[in-house]
Amino acid sequence: MLLKSNINSLKSLVKKQNVLSEIEERYCYAQDSTNSKTYGKVPEAVVFVESIEDVQKVLKFANSRKIPVISRGAGTNMVGACVCPKGGIVLNFSKMNKILDFNPENMTMRVQPGVVLGDIKKMADGEGLFYPPDPSNYSVSTIGGSIAQSSGGALAFKYGTTKDYILNLTVVLADGSVMKLGAGTIKDAVGYHLNQLIIGSEGTLAVVVEAELKLIPKPEASRVVMAYFDCIEDAIKGVNNVIKDRIFPSALEFMDKNAITTVEKFKPCGLNTEKEAVLIAELDGLESSMESQINCMQQAFLRAGASDLSVASTDNDKEAIWTARRASFAATAKLAPDVVTDDIIVPRAALAKMVMGCREICDKYGLTVCIVGHVGDGNIHPQVALNLDNDEEFKKYIRAKSEMYQLAVSLGGTISAEHGVGLEKISYIESTIDIKALEYMKEIKKMFDPNNILNPDKIFKL
Amino acid sequence: MLLKSNINSLKSLVKKQNVLSEIEERYCYAQDSTNSKTYGKVPEAVVFVESIEDVQKVLKFANSRKIPVISRGAGTNMVGACVCPKGGIVLNFSKMNKILDFNPENMTMRVQPGVVLGDIKKMADGEGLFYPPDPSNYSVSTIGGSIAQSSGGALAFKYGTTKDYILNLTVVLADGSVMKLGAGTIKDAVGYHLNQLIIGSEGTLAVVVEAELKLIPKPEASRVVMAYFDCIEDAIKGVNNVIKDRIFPSALEFMDKNAITTVEKFKPCGLNTEKEAVLIAELDGLESSMESQINCMQQAFLRAGASDLSVASTDNDKEAIWTARRASFAATAKLAPDVVTDDIIVPRAALAKMVMGCREICDKYGLTVCIVGHVGDGNIHPQVALNLDNDEEFKKYIRAKSEMYQLAVSLGGTISAEHGVGLEKISYIESTIDIKALEYMKEIKKMFDPNNILNPDKIFKL
Repeated sequence: MLLKSNINSLKSLVKKQNVLSEIEERYCYAQDSTNSKTYGKVPEAVVFVESIEDVQKVLKFANSRKIPVISRGAGTNMVGACVCPKGGIVLNFSKMNKILDFNPENMTMRVQPGVVLGDIKKMADGEGLFYPPDPSNYSVSTIGGSIAQSSGGALAFKYGTTKDYILNLTVVLADGSVMKLGAGTIKDAVGYHLNQLIIGSEGTLAVVVEAELKLIPKPEASRVVMAYFDCIEDAIKGVNNVIKDRIFPSALEFMDKNAITTVEKFKPCGLNTEKEAVLIAELDGLESSMESQINCMQQAFLRAGASDLSVASTDNDKEAIWTARRASFAATAKLAPDVVTDDIIVPRAALAKMVMGCREICDKYGLTVCIVGHVGDGNIHPQVALNLDNDEEFKKYIRAKSEMYQLAVSLGGTISAEHGVGLEKISYIESTIDIKALEYMKEIKKMFDPNNILNPDKIFKL
Repeated sequence: MLLKSNINSLKSLVKKQNVLSEIEERYCYAQDSTNSKTYGKVPEAVVFVESIEDVQKVLKFANSRKIPVISRGAGTNMVGACVCPKGGIVLNFSKMNKILDFNPENMTMRVQPGVVLGDIKKMADGEGLFYPPDPSNYSVSTIGGSIAQSSGGALAFKYGTTKDYILNLTVVLADGSVMKLGAGTIKDAVGYHLNQLIIGSEGTLAVVVEAELKLIPKPEASRVVMAYFDCIEDAIKGVNNVIKDRIFPSALEFMDKNAITTVEKFKPCGLNTEKEAVLIAELDGLESSMESQINCMQQAFLRAGASDLSVASTDNDKEAIWTARRASFAATAKLAPDVVTDDIIVPRAALAKMVMGCREICDKYGLTVCIVGHVGDGNIHPQVALNLDNDEEFKKYIRAKSEMYQLAVSLGGTISAEHGVGLEKISYIESTIDIKALEYMKEIKKMFDPNNILNPDKIFKL
């Protein structure tokens, strides 16, 4: 609990107007994008940091008084990673949103944590370069959040996730000191990969205040192939055929009938609502390779029983398809007062069992679920529409969720592919990862943050 | 120092014949592939481990007696990472060389640490799959060593390094307990990336006993474009043009005149010894994209003043070029009693300054240097031929090396891109990375290995 005097101290450390202390100003920070059941306390203060020095001052102050500090970008997190179960200070990074350096010759970009991913992509694009990670919310979410959660997205199939595009980080430690991790070069074999330890640590080890990103040459051309299927099994067969044929699409996405009809209902865009599933594959590379890539992809889909195939070539057509795919969360949200999206991954070979299993589990509990996912990676996002204020329904959802996680783990998969653990999955981590590894994670947490002030009680409780 | 009784204990822990204790048997383990000046003591025992249990038993025993344990694959390390400055026990992994599982459907492979990289590549290839990391010595070096040193290779430009292809690891900790890190899936956002902490830690944190590798679809076709240049600056301009034109070759390699003539002298393969430098670019992807890729690459090279361009299309022709490139170390070794190869990386924009600087420094000290490198990444390997037993020459080399490192760091680069730090670069680490980061590395080392038995005094001294 922050005393009034603490708030006044914060106002003396940074610009007074950068400290929000009125309840109306702080109220919305009790939640992120997870769901209305996942909320912490209203933080006692929200500080808009403007510089590394601001972050240092606040952390030094908070550490000396053992006040929790929760870093926040756009708040688009899906696992409660930026809510405040213990209250405390929220560091709002929306004013640290500068692209500090863009070096096309090196294919690198140095950014502050509050820069929106879409802005990074746009700036890179202007010079024929490409920053691949593309979480669905990239038009609003920030690079700081991406680093904290090690975000993925549809393009992870070919291009990997955030962890593959961070050359170096500048972080502020719990005691307010600054540490630089990694090198300014494409490769680096000097000492332990501490930057990889910070990426995905959900703000629990240190606060990222600067990052240098690796960019790659932008593919010259791309096409999007869509194919519908009469049953989910056939669609998964389509995915397996793509793997079998060694086609390497940049994205390989899936939507089930519920997702298709829900999107079409709320944002009509010509999807075929008669079919049980659709696969969306993006092919990229040189223009000269497009025709043969499209042919291969269509053959792989047709062999699995696909129908109603189409190819999008223009930017508008491609964007329309991706917008439909990305809209599934927002559309599902309109089916009921609430929507909860999950994030499960299994080895590709177990994908059919996982998708069918999710559907069966949700059916059993009478839950409406739209299943979408990055199926090329074996990663699905079941989106459940429900009324969280209905206790009965909420209990059913909790049971269904637990069964889906059990199924994923039993199939050799895990409970989070790209959303993180946060608060939402904290009670499942012990049944997911090696207990010994969890012990080591806790020891590392204690080393970095002896007073447990950095986003406490996320991922695991000490 | 191991007592006779310790040797007897080891012989009771594992199969007796798996423990080498005679001096003639142990002698060669005082060195790895670094150079004759970088040697430790002769280890008191060499244990051929055959199972995870063997590793556990030896570590438990060694930890209780504080005996150093150094893991060793093929011993191809270039920085003294597997020599034994304090003596101790060498764990030889050459009998743990099984591919445990190959799952083409998941595009994954589970391997023991002693598997030779070339065998992994060959097995993947048989199913149309691809394990990209390709250190020059991949026909003999092991995956365990690759993980320990986070190896790169020519294909890192497009495909990244070893750290990008490890899904999960099983490790034995200093106390003999087993820990599993990472998930069996392509993505994983559950907890800290401890497997990334182990990769590149040079055997100082834990002993890797199993790894699951991520494979990707094998590119359908590839071509190798070679182009000669009349001066080094033009060749570097060629590299910059490739970046500027957003061409994405899988490899972009460089050899200077000394390297060209040295290779040609000892392994005649038709290289043009009249020219000052050659660039070798590998283009891969769909067959349908080859012609346009080759055209783009040739244009980029020609604009920089290239001449004598050629394209290799057949497997034999391509392999001949790569064999010539990879032979440069062995060929340089024939110029003098010894050869030392280094590993320096700078941001691409500083590449010309780095290459010219290396040459000037070596010229100043009268040292024969062949410069080759993965110039697409800004990474060069100066190979110095000399007589290490000539004290004068050795001193000159040490001075030259130190100046090259200073130059790299002053250009925003670092002292190791893919070889690691080992013993060789230990005295330079403080002037290279953030001291705070080094402190944290040391704390992590103490946490994992409180008795400092795992490859002690490598990367840094405690």
